[in-house]
Amino acid sequence: MRYSNLFGKTVREAPADASTISHKLLYQAGFIRESTAGRYFFLPLGQLVQNKIINIIREEMNKAGAQEMLSPLLHPLDLWKETNRTNTAGFELMRIIDRRGAEFALGGTAEEMFVDIVRKFQISYKELPFNIYQFSNKFRDEMRARGGLLRLREFMMKDAYSFDVDEESFKKEYKNMGDTYMRIYEKVGLKTIVVESDGGYIGGDYCHEYVIESPIGESKFFMSSDGTYSAHEDVACFTVEEGNQSDVEESLKAIKAQRGKTMEDGVKLHNKPLWKQIKDVLFVDEQNRFILAIIRGDFDVNEVKLKKLIKAITLRSATDEEITNIIHSFPGFISPVGIKQLVNKDREIIIVADPSLRTVKNAYGGNNKQFEDLLNVNIDRDYIPDIEGDIALAKNGFLGPDGKSRLEEKRGIEVGNIFQLGYHYTSKMKNSVFTDEGGKTQPYYMGCYGLGIGRTLASLVEIYHDEKGIIWPQSVAPFQVHLIGLSIETEETKIKVDTIYTQLTEKGIEVLYDDRVETRAGEKFADADLIGIPHRIVVSKKTGDKLEYKARTEKVATLISIEEAIQIIGQK
Amino acid sequence: MRYSNLFGKTVREAPADASTISHKLLYQAGFIRESTAGRYFFLPLGQLVQNKIINIIREEMNKAGAQEMLSPLLHPLDLWKETNRTNTAGFELMRIIDRRGAEFALGGTAEEMFVDIVRKFQISYKELPFNIYQFSNKFRDEMRARGGLLRLREFMMKDAYSFDVDEESFKKEYKNMGDTYMRIYEKVGLKTIVVESDGGYIGGDYCHEYVIESPIGESKFFMSSDGTYSAHEDVACFTVEEGNQSDVEESLKAIKAQRGKTMEDGVKLHNKPLWKQIKDVLFVDEQNRFILAIIRGDFDVNEVKLKKLIKAITLRSATDEEITNIIHSFPGFISPVGIKQLVNKDREIIIVADPSLRTVKNAYGGNNKQFEDLLNVNIDRDYIPDIEGDIALAKNGFLGPDGKSRLEEKRGIEVGNIFQLGYHYTSKMKNSVFTDEGGKTQPYYMGCYGLGIGRTLASLVEIYHDEKGIIWPQSVAPFQVHLIGLSIETEETKIKVDTIYTQLTEKGIEVLYDDRVETRAGEKFADADLIGIPHRIVVSKKTGDKLEYKARTEKVATLISIEEAIQIIGQK
Repeated sequence: MRYSNLFGKTVREAPADASTISHKLLYQAGFIRESTAGRYFFLPLGQLVQNKIINIIREEMNKAGAQEMLSPLLHPLDLWKETNRTNTAGFELMRIIDRRGAEFALGGTAEEMFVDIVRKFQISYKELPFNIYQFSNKFRDEMRARGGLLRLREFMMKDAYSFDVDEESFKKEYKNMGDTYMRIYEKVGLKTIVVESDGGYIGGDYCHEYVIESPIGESKFFMSSDGTYSAHEDVACFTVEEGNQSDVEESLKAIKAQRGKTMEDGVKLHNKPLWKQIKDVLFVDEQNRFILAIIRGDFDVNEVKLKKLIKAITLRSATDEEITNIIHSFPGFISPVGIKQLVNKDREIIIVADPSLRTVKNAYGGNNKQFEDLLNVNIDRDYIPDIEGDIALAKNGFLGPDGKSRLEEKRGIEVGNIFQLGYHYTSKMKNSVFTDEGGKTQPYYMGCYGLGIGRTLASLVEIYHDEKGIIWPQSVAPFQVHLIGLSIETEETKIKVDTIYTQLTEKGIEVLYDDRVETRAGEKFADADLIGIPHRIVVSKKTGDKLEYKARTEKVATLISIEEAIQIIGQK
Repeated sequence: MRYSNLFGKTVREAPADASTISHKLLYQAGFIRESTAGRYFFLPLGQLVQNKIINIIREEMNKAGAQEMLSPLLHPLDLWKETNRTNTAGFELMRIIDRRGAEFALGGTAEEMFVDIVRKFQISYKELPFNIYQFSNKFRDEMRARGGLLRLREFMMKDAYSFDVDEESFKKEYKNMGDTYMRIYEKVGLKTIVVESDGGYIGGDYCHEYVIESPIGESKFFMSSDGTYSAHEDVACFTVEEGNQSDVEESLKAIKAQRGKTMEDGVKLHNKPLWKQIKDVLFVDEQNRFILAIIRGDFDVNEVKLKKLIKAITLRSATDEEITNIIHSFPGFISPVGIKQLVNKDREIIIVADPSLRTVKNAYGGNNKQFEDLLNVNIDRDYIPDIEGDIALAKNGFLGPDGKSRLEEKRGIEVGNIFQLGYHYTSKMKNSVFTDEGGKTQPYYMGCYGLGIGRTLASLVEIYHDEKGIIWPQSVAPFQVHLIGLSIETEETKIKVDTIYTQLTEKGIEVLYDDRVETRAGEKFADADLIGIPHRIVVSKKTGDKLEYKARTEKVATLISIEEAIQIIGQK
């Protein structure tokens, strides 16, 4: 490719809103351009990289036994209704109606579509398991797009769906896909951390994210200092350190409490430790149920854990008015003790307690009245939770779930994820069954496996760059060689460089040839560094029979023969 | 690939609504399934073929110097407004609004998007020409989908857009793309006819369709018997055979005419030839203008030609009520003579005459009153057309434009098209300019080039099949070899077939291995014929050290060694 003909040249200025290195460099080097916020053009250089990433994924997925196919992008909305994802996917789902009145969702992920195509066939256990995947555009009506390719409203994704006879068989495929992901990331040149995570509206019981550690990542996770445990903040567990659980329970006591509404106000007034206070957080879910989440005072509630525990789709904070007029409690003085008797008869309140409260004897907190607190509150004796389960937010320095090493907070870019789905979809979608050995129908046990191409590409730039520009790993570089011709206004030199260009391309080497005549050498070098092709070759009047070779990662160029250059390029 | 694991197996029954061979066979052989009307899943076998077609196109486009990129599928609606295609593309355009209220069109074609990305760069004449293309899903809200993959509402398309300094430079690229298309079709195995056609809402002055001759095609075109001329019905020209143009003009005469409303009624009453009658067809366009199209009585009006001539977006027939109450004429008795004086003052009527009327002297027809006709009507003397131009529908047997050979009506499947766009888009979209040698800005001269993947795939099946199934050309076959193992319930035979499978795949040969144990030989043979892989190899107890080889196109199998088989497969 001659640079003079390349569409999408380098520019010096970065976009004003570029908050990440990858956004800035991919823009300046001519790989991408924004269409509207969160929707990008891949320019020829960017598309070359995207295609290389796709080919690596395709090769590894096929090797792992998965089969590529393709589903339409407009999904019949009825399928999403069948699984209730029209509600659970919420605002992110884009809908459209065609001129005959048929309703569609613009595919965000394709679980329903793949179950729907599978149930069109009569499948026996003998044909299982299989894993089918596609490369296709995904649409998410994100509230905020950011960071160039890091959070998009439209993006290319590899999504795979596995169908197994049972969990045991599925677990092999889950491992197979996990191994495949590691091979893919290794081939593209990325070091990923496998992190336990939350499935969100995808559903299922467990899943793992593949994360590139990076301070600009949106994924907050915790890793134990010994590296044996890593989990997304929304699922991370920790060991609650000892409280005073062996103390003797004392009698419940109501006392006047002229204080403000915060936890700190309680600590100050009673001169007791924060951890002995009960933290009460009141939510309202999409069914209009009140959810009173209670936890030890030194911890915070993780809403994702809470939602999952109570199977809610959305949560919002209760208003002061609701607390006063419907619950008949008082903001800042809420208590689980006796609250069920106070609330209006036509409304439900669910008390959800975090197990951390079991480490506290004789806790203190509000008494559902202004300026009145309770002392010596004890679980089971003074209040009985409707649901007890982990709703606690892990924090940096907390003791890991093994009770030995401490958790370290990290940030990363989520580039892929694998999900156990189990019967989440096949239990909701009619006839998504195979015939077992006994001739009976059974629902499929499913998994799904996503991998974002654009985000992988951007992560590569986040990891591989210096102050001058991108440094592409060989496996995904848009070209292998950046050939710079200098003093090519001289016919003789021009012929020399053209000949080397031909020799390299005839060897099957992908070359970007900077053949611009009126451009200064410095500018050509700067462009080469910015674009980041692994091998740079300079040919000029001065290089004689030889050529000047430098790897993008090296500082100094050396004069070598074309044969030597071809050998070096072939090796790396 | 082992057939037992393949997702998407053969079935015996065809879908009830399958009206074409390709729909029927692609369904039965397990290549495609419908999601909703006009939106299809590509099953693994279908996707393998689709990928092979894409790779051939990509290779040839790159060889021709075009550069692959990728645009978002959701196009900002403002861009389509800029070129007025929100109106001209009409109902086919699907629109969507995101949750922030931004309006988008689902891409049907991407001219605006590609002009928009190009105008984001400062480009000099030295960087021109270039041709940028993509493979991406296209959406068309078609009223009727039909024929499996032949008319879809959503489909994968290669669309390319060229940017040149002027028409002279563009013409080279137009030829380059024309040649590239021929090479692509030759490689996939299709014989195409290049047909002059109408650009529809794409715009531009001229374009060519690549058509596969087929009785089920929706594209009706005419080819001169000597093969030198071929044109779509909407642009086909013909030589109007001599009338009586050398006759002397006689005086205009109004006479009573107690007749019905049809042309035949006129012929009968006056006992004169049809061709001497004036045919009047009255339309209303989107601006509410009346369009009176007049033509020699033995010809018909082609609405596409008419629309293009008068630059109308839509046309509908005028109602009897409009003819009576607004035009103040009478249905069946319309005449261009004096009609402009009759019509209501606040309405416009445009008389569009086909040049065929110049071959008629002393024509006859209505007189804008019930039961009154005019005789000896002559153009220029009795009425003056506002616009004169070719609006005639060509018909089978008409004399071609060269006046020598006759036109033959043909049908075909349009698999690709190339369009001159000129300044159609760059004159409407601001700042779509480059800098010329003198430092001044100039609009780009454009072309665009479309190629439908699904339709190409379906056309291949329409052409290559027999009563047993598909016969894929080697270049696009999902696999090269269909290996059938028989009597593999015997461990010894199973090992033998497994070994051959390994040997073939290790040679880089793509093999579909029918490893089903409980399936009868006859069923396996029938499936092989249905799926249509070029080379069939059968291994059983009986084949000994050899294997039974048969090409899909052959009737009789022969016993050969695996080395011989590998050689045959490599050759074809």
